[in-house]
Amino acid sequence: MGNEHDEVVVQEVGLRDGLQRLSSIMPTGDKKHWIDTAYAAGVRHMELASFGVLATLPQLIDGAELVAHARRHDGLVITAVATDEAGARAALACGVHRIVAPISASALHSLSNVRRTPREMIEEFRKIRELRDRTDGTRSTKVVAALATALGCAYKGAVPHVEVCDVALQAVDAGCDELALADTTGLATPDKVVDLIEILRPFCSDKLKTAHFHNTCGLGLANVVAALQCGIHSFDSSLAGLGGADGPKSASGNVVTEDLVFMLESMGYRTGIDLRKLMGCRTVLNRTFGQRALEGFVARSGVPDEFQLQPMLWSSTHA
Amino acid sequence: MGNEHDEVVVQEVGLRDGLQRLSSIMPTGDKKHWIDTAYAAGVRHMELASFGVLATLPQLIDGAELVAHARRHDGLVITAVATDEAGARAALACGVHRIVAPISASALHSLSNVRRTPREMIEEFRKIRELRDRTDGTRSTKVVAALATALGCAYKGAVPHVEVCDVALQAVDAGCDELALADTTGLATPDKVVDLIEILRPFCSDKLKTAHFHNTCGLGLANVVAALQCGIHSFDSSLAGLGGADGPKSASGNVVTEDLVFMLESMGYRTGIDLRKLMGCRTVLNRTFGQRALEGFVARSGVPDEFQLQPMLWSSTHA
Repeated sequence: MGNEHDEVVVQEVGLRDGLQRLSSIMPTGDKKHWIDTAYAAGVRHMELASFGVLATLPQLIDGAELVAHARRHDGLVITAVATDEAGARAALACGVHRIVAPISASALHSLSNVRRTPREMIEEFRKIRELRDRTDGTRSTKVVAALATALGCAYKGAVPHVEVCDVALQAVDAGCDELALADTTGLATPDKVVDLIEILRPFCSDKLKTAHFHNTCGLGLANVVAALQCGIHSFDSSLAGLGGADGPKSASGNVVTEDLVFMLESMGYRTGIDLRKLMGCRTVLNRTFGQRALEGFVARSGVPDEFQLQPMLWSSTHA
Repeated sequence: MGNEHDEVVVQEVGLRDGLQRLSSIMPTGDKKHWIDTAYAAGVRHMELASFGVLATLPQLIDGAELVAHARRHDGLVITAVATDEAGARAALACGVHRIVAPISASALHSLSNVRRTPREMIEEFRKIRELRDRTDGTRSTKVVAALATALGCAYKGAVPHVEVCDVALQAVDAGCDELALADTTGLATPDKVVDLIEILRPFCSDKLKTAHFHNTCGLGLANVVAALQCGIHSFDSSLAGLGGADGPKSASGNVVTEDLVFMLESMGYRTGIDLRKLMGCRTVLNRTFGQRALEGFVARSGVPDEFQLQPMLWSSTHA
């Protein structure tokens, strides 16, 4: 089940995906504080902004300011979502390191999400990549195609593997640097994650690196383990599981960053994140969302003493 | 990852492990209603009582009455915990179908839990098995050794595999019909589950059938998937995740039955349980524990419409 001591990237997406659909608006100062404390805890990958059709959402209106703030931190890899060429231009102007464009395998979801068919979105992605090539001669800014609805769609249910492979192949052809797998509905199960990755691999030319799972049905961590087994070593998650939409009957939040870090480190993977310091980052969320909105099993049970003192104690093969 | 359409046993342990350490006492009438509604939802395996050192706990004092009530339901497999020979006698007198005795690999936990060393507990288990043989000539009542602290101990941290293999081997030698793996601390991770089962198998003579995981750090379902991959097809869980102890800093509850059934059925396993009817069973818990104490991701997000209409829709390999 993977090699112990492998590094795994945990990307904090709470400041974008986490906040995007919540009705409460987090003050910009609090967001900056969140960035600073997460960085101090060792988080080195953050998705901070969305440019394009979502940029005017009041939840995300301060994206450019957040990117500028985050750029003060050495070694922090900053990602922004861009849904179109204009969005990518704004992201490049801010100096982000990664631009993620959502490409849905499901046409209905694609139209709803970015107002383009999958084929139109591939063309837009090609323009984003060409814009990056012109603007950034060294191509140090990476362009990432996020395969939305790869594991199911709220409109059409299951999405046939062939449709996912098709958009993946087109994204590679359009020059993406990376592919990301997104469980948009939160209804993926571990067997389906394994099946899809195995089928998708030959079409991805080693570019499939990241997975994004939700916790709608509590399967986020189980799906991470399944993806780890398939060689994925980069995962999105959200502090306190922030995300989804307020109210009942809506998809619940992202994988909880704290629980993900606990699991990975307990399994012997290195995330570079100090779990106890990470727990402290939660306090900034209280003011806007209140304690009850904050998810997390480890937050509730407390970080086990043994984890703090001697993480390797948990590996009984060493006892 | 296992074969689709395999049957998986989901044993409801909420009425024993779920209630045992909670400060609120559930009325016997409500417990009977829980048994009846769970049975109506298709649950065919329940752990209902504990006899021996725990039998006088006010939370569990009505165990014999519950077993008598449950015996009215055809095909319901009734399990009771027995911590000593006297407890096993009481369980046999009630007419349970399975007697589970906890045998800790950790001596400290064993002394704390059943006031015996592991070796003394093995001897007690042998007496339980001999009592069963004398009382029940057909041996239709099964005696199960539950390997407590197999995946870690609150007192000593990691438990070396050799100590777990040793108690397993002794339990087999003492004549157990089945072995169960118990993550007593709730700190197991999927890699450790796989490692332990693979190492343990040769010592178990095909008797290792069941696993019992907690959700202390949110890894319950991920650990179930790991165990499924190793051929375990029987899992304990608790309605609404009931279990653990009240208050902060205590281990949280069991794997949530509703989420477990959702996951297994979504993966193509057959549990025989109607998920929507199962959700209805939660209401009886409200009176004693209140809505806020009830866990469950599927309860919060709602059973997806597609799951109800057409479970196989979720398997994209069939699309």
